[in-house]
Amino acid sequence: MESNCPPEFLAQILSRYALPTPTARPHVTLTFAQSLDAKIAGAGGRQLVLSGKESMIMTHWMRTLHDGILIGIGTALNDDPQLNARHLPPRATPYALPRPIVVDSLLRLSPNCKLLKNYQNGVGRRPWVICSALENTGSEISHGLTTSRLQRKQALETAGAKVFEISTTDTQLPIPSILQTLRGNGISSVMVEGGAQIISSFMQEDVVDALIVTVAPTMVGEAGIGYGFAGSSPDSVVEFQSLQHVYTGVFGKDSVVAFCTDGTKGG
Amino acid sequence: MESNCPPEFLAQILSRYALPTPTARPHVTLTFAQSLDAKIAGAGGRQLVLSGKESMIMTHWMRTLHDGILIGIGTALNDDPQLNARHLPPRATPYALPRPIVVDSLLRLSPNCKLLKNYQNGVGRRPWVICSALENTGSEISHGLTTSRLQRKQALETAGAKVFEISTTDTQLPIPSILQTLRGNGISSVMVEGGAQIISSFMQEDVVDALIVTVAPTMVGEAGIGYGFAGSSPDSVVEFQSLQHVYTGVFGKDSVVAFCTDGTKGG
Repeated sequence: MESNCPPEFLAQILSRYALPTPTARPHVTLTFAQSLDAKIAGAGGRQLVLSGKESMIMTHWMRTLHDGILIGIGTALNDDPQLNARHLPPRATPYALPRPIVVDSLLRLSPNCKLLKNYQNGVGRRPWVICSALENTGSEISHGLTTSRLQRKQALETAGAKVFEISTTDTQLPIPSILQTLRGNGISSVMVEGGAQIISSFMQEDVVDALIVTVAPTMVGEAGIGYGFAGSSPDSVVEFQSLQHVYTGVFGKDSVVAFCTDGTKGG
Repeated sequence: MESNCPPEFLAQILSRYALPTPTARPHVTLTFAQSLDAKIAGAGGRQLVLSGKESMIMTHWMRTLHDGILIGIGTALNDDPQLNARHLPPRATPYALPRPIVVDSLLRLSPNCKLLKNYQNGVGRRPWVICSALENTGSEISHGLTTSRLQRKQALETAGAKVFEISTTDTQLPIPSILQTLRGNGISSVMVEGGAQIISSFMQEDVVDALIVTVAPTMVGEAGIGYGFAGSSPDSVVEFQSLQHVYTGVFGKDSVVAFCTDGTKGG
């Protein structure tokens, strides 16, 4: 049942992204796969393969519909992902691929990662790395970093990365600053794909235009990492941010549930 | 899209229940509705209306396919449920309804509850109440019970309930004893429907033949009650008991995910 175009629900939800962005940030799609018991990673944040082939293909279609794809450094280090659309059916015209964006406060990304290798080999777009402008935060040692910040920056730039520095008072980069940086550099839609910490952070911010969740029919158990959505009214079912449910569908064994802001609803 | 017969996946999964029960317990279907963030109740166990009309109808079909339907006393007191199939399309032959079974260690059920009223009015089956044979456990006062255990038992029996006593050393009734009592009294299939505490207890026991979960496209937040499935291997996706995924479908806005033991798989 391979199709040559994106699932209809995705095309509908994301069609509004063609409109001018009304804010100082890009349109944001938050997307992840979770187990039935709402875990997005194993104990200690370990990567889990939750989604099946069909929903993975859906995710790859989603990638072709965004300017940028954002992941955290944890995911970049653990999974060494390629963030491309290799599961889509081959075709004559290459798929539009999103810019890989790694949120990497301390510049821990490896210059040998697949994202940079693919760029060097002409099969991937130039990765962007967003880091903190803070020097010597004290966190470097706990992460086993022995080189200087400047050395790490230069190594990444030599390998092809474009490095953006954000002024912060904290090593945790503020999401609004990240989004502002992206918008200022021409990204008008970004897909936020993981890992657990990035997803949790975005769940707490009111910046999500669309939320697309793949639910895999598995149970991870209590030791797994959830997304810790606090909720605003614990006694009742609350709206998540200003998002409304727009779609539920089955992709193989998984279900896919989509929410978006009012403006998007009904595509 | 009202149908006059149960959803195919349910008929398939539950068809094995027609076979003789191989164990000293009934076939057990554990079923509940959860939010996307895997909560089954609000803060403090408060009832939430999670499932939509379509999955509610599916649940009512499920009820017609079981000998008994089991709930905990918390649900009986909070929701005063009827446990019938009133959302199904009217038809000439009445639907087979399951025996209502309330797990009620201290006999806190109200003689005026709808289950007993419906029985008195000839529109419901006789409710069974399963209690502890323990006298004066000390928990009565904390629950505001001022009458004696015998008085409460007699009041329930007068209202029409059949009371079963289980010998325990604890006020928490052991699930194997409950199931043994049911089996010994002719129940060969039981649907366990709630609430949060009963579901959590059954999630920890290896007695579930089928697990049918409705996932509503809502977020409850961290204060809600989950089912606390411990998991046997926190580093990876684990099988829940010996259950395997057999079905994912969409019912209105909800998705429904079904698991069953090997014997049932493929129906």
